[in-house]
This record gives sequence, structure tokens and C-alpha cells, in this order.
Amino acid sequence: MNKSNIISAGLLVIGDEILSGRTADQNINFLAKNLSQIGIRLREVRVVGDFENEIIVAINELRKKFDYVFTSGGIGPTHDDITSLSIAKAFNQDLILNEIAHQILIQHYGENNVNEARLKMAYLPRMASLLDNPISSAPGFRIENVFVMAGIPKIFQAMFEASKKELKLGCKIISREIKISLTESVIAKDLTDLQSEYREISMGSYPFDGGTSLAFRGIEEKVLEEAFLKMQNLIIKIDSKAIIEIS
Amino acid sequence: MNKSNIISAGLLVIGDEILSGRTADQNINFLAKNLSQIGIRLREVRVVGDFENEIIVAINELRKKFDYVFTSGGIGPTHDDITSLSIAKAFNQDLILNEIAHQILIQHYGENNVNEARLKMAYLPRMASLLDNPISSAPGFRIENVFVMAGIPKIFQAMFEASKKELKLGCKIISREIKISLTESVIAKDLTDLQSEYREISMGSYPFDGGTSLAFRGIEEKVLEEAFLKMQNLIIKIDSKAIIEIS
Repeated sequence: MNKSNIISAGLLVIGDEILSGRTADQNINFLAKNLSQIGIRLREVRVVGDFENEIIVAINELRKKFDYVFTSGGIGPTHDDITSLSIAKAFNQDLILNEIAHQILIQHYGENNVNEARLKMAYLPRMASLLDNPISSAPGFRIENVFVMAGIPKIFQAMFEASKKELKLGCKIISREIKISLTESVIAKDLTDLQSEYREISMGSYPFDGGTSLAFRGIEEKVLEEAFLKMQNLIIKIDSKAIIEIS
Repeated sequence: MNKSNIISAGLLVIGDEILSGRTADQNINFLAKNLSQIGIRLREVRVVGDFENEIIVAINELRKKFDYVFTSGGIGPTHDDITSLSIAKAFNQDLILNEIAHQILIQHYGENNVNEARLKMAYLPRMASLLDNPISSAPGFRIENVFVMAGIPKIFQAMFEASKKELKLGCKIISREIKISLTESVIAKDLTDLQSEYREISMGSYPFDGGTSLAFRGIEEKVLEEAFLKMQNLIIKIDSKAIIEIS
């Protein structure tokens, strides 16, 4: 496994509505799945409310820790949309009128309808570059290794598609999973021993009603298949009828 | 608003399966909603993988910042369940065999079936006290202001019910919401002005296809209703037919 090919990411979800329970987040799982598919490992997620200082602290910690950081939420026209300003402050940059974002708003609303609230959306950190957004006029942007995106899942997803063009891709992570009818404590010891033998494979054990799912994840297919087959044999030794499903 | 009645909480979600996208978290939204109902404000969420050092750092930051911290995940019998050990290290405590947890395992599995993996679940930080868990033998526990709970939603929820008995309750947070057919940029200025007038009310604006939801949250019912009524009047002034639904 080439360490230089392991690319890491963090996600900062911004919004009181997630922390109050009004809205159930959908962006964490979308990003997690989609980053896995292009070989980028989501390593940490934080959710904070609409508080400038909390956003600044979180973004400055995450952007130093990981290759990429994504944010979701807070780039709209209302008073509680403070992400762009907070990101500008985190980078010690002014918030200036971005001419491209401004033109997009004019095209979308018509020149005479770009009111103060709409215009606010076009103020971005000085060094920001816009992300393509084919489905709305909300300006997502990139600044250094941080991708600032909308909270609405459909727009978040479109902006992620746009950001993909700019990402270094890592080694694709391959996964195999086996469902068995045994409780996890029955296979725990064998699994621990196997994990010690294959340190480059991440082995997860997830109980469900009536059994356990074992998920193996790794980069080298041959090694993954070898470990996965050994696990199947260990299971069969305990109970030849225990395997429910292999995927 | 009596500041001493505002009680804060953080949540630490632990598990590679959330960050890989294999599993979509359900505990964040459950906890957010249920804490709101008892007057406790969820202020921050973090999601980290099954890495001891990351768990220790996160738990030590969160437990200093908030009145209460909840964790979800990693208390089962397999090698990837490292929450109890990590929490013990965060508190500089030994991990010792908790006699009550041990007895529960013996009752559940029978004395001769408590194998090494199952026994591991009964090792808790020295000062931990068990949470009631009516639906499984997995030991959730409390240590100081930290509640360590299972990742499986059904068990997480049962453990939260058990933890509630031990929580100081804050002022109940009341919320009102209005759906309108206007885009948020049309009411943004009025909303900003109203927010400046009522700083103790949290006003959120959430666009959806075809309109905007405005959510008002606060502690004092009279003040909340007054601000909410003013908002309705401001909306009617812009467009007398804009209100879709009030809840």
C-alpha cells in the first residue's frame, strides 16, 4: 500500500437545523460513499451551529489535518447564512464581490431583481474560485483545500460532482461483506487473529437482529480476497450453515 | 432567559462504518430531537473512526466544552470495539472488570458461555456506572459527564432513555414554523431586522422546492409568539397569499 496514495478528507456540516433535530442530515452518508468510490478517505465529520467562531475554529483545525475539507450549509441569502464570511475570516481574507457569482445572479434573477439579500450570496473570500452549479444560483466555492457547498442535498450533490474534477484521486477502496447467522462474540477471537495477520485490511463487525455482518475493506484486491476467503473458512469451521449472504 | 438553565451537550459518533458510507447514522437526529424536548441543546457533533487516539482527543475536548457528552458505537465484543478502552485512557483510569456488567453477561449467556470476547464487554473504566439496558447485555455506562452508548439505533435509544433519569433538565425549547411560497431572498431583509429585534429567538430560514420554511425557536413562549406573529404580518404585507402552512 503506497501511503502517498492515501488521500484524506474532513466534512464540516454547518447548521442549527441539524443540531435542533429539525432536519436529518443526508450529506454525511452521501459524501462518505462517494469519496470511498474515488479512493478518498473521509476521516472526520463535525457538525456545528450557525456561530461564526465555532465555524472558524473547526475549519482551521480540519483544513490542517486533512488533504481536503468539504463544508455543507450556510451559503444562502439570509442572516443565518454565515459560512462565506466565517470561511473568509478563517483564511484571513476579505469578503469581496465575486464578479462571476454576481453575473450568475443577474442572469438568474434579472438585473433589477438582485436585491441586497441575493447580492450577499456573491460576496466570497478574495481567493475563492467558484464551483460549477448547474441547478441553482447559489455560489459554492473552493478556497485552497476547502470546498464550500450548499446544505440542500440535491445542490450539495451537484456541487460535489463539480468539485470532483479538482480532486486528486486515491487508490480505490474495495470492500467485501459477509452476513452470518452467528452473534459477533462467537467469531470475535478468530476475527481478531485474522485482523492481526492482515493489518492493511480494515475488518469491521456489525451485529444485526439474527446475526452479524463482517465488512472487509482494503486497497489490494488479491490480499483482500485472501483474507476474506480465510474468514469464510473460519466461519464454516464453527458452523457449516452459518453463511447467509456474501457480497 | 436564565443562562444557568441552558444546558449543553455534545455527541461523539464512533465508527469506521459511518465514515466509509456503509452505514447511515441515525443517532444524531434522534439525540438532537430528544435533547431539544428536555431543554438540552446539542451544540456539536463529531464523527471519528475506530482509532484510539482520535477518540481520546475528541472526548477530552467535548467533555470540557459541554455539560454532557454522549457517545455512540464501539462497545461490543470485537477487536474494532475500542470505545471503553479509549474512554478509560481519556480519563486516565484503568479498565477493570465491572462486577455488575459481568453478572449481566453470565445471566444472559450462562456461566459457561461467557467467552473471552463477551467478557471483554464487562471491562469498563474504574469509575464507570452502568446504564440500564433492558434490550441487550451490551454495557452502556456513565463516567462523570460522559454517557457511553451503543451504536445500534434501537439500543442507543434504550440507553438514552436510561440516561435521561440522570440528566439535569433545562428550559424546554419551543418552536414554531411557517411554510411560505416565497423564496428566501424575498423575505431575507425583514427576517434579518426581526432577528436583530429578538435576539433571544433563533430564526432559521430553510428553502425547499417551491418556497421557504421559517423556523423560530426560543424558551419564552410569549416572546416567541410575538415575534412569530410579526413575521406572519411581514409576509402578508409582501404577498397576502404566500402562507402555505403554520405549525
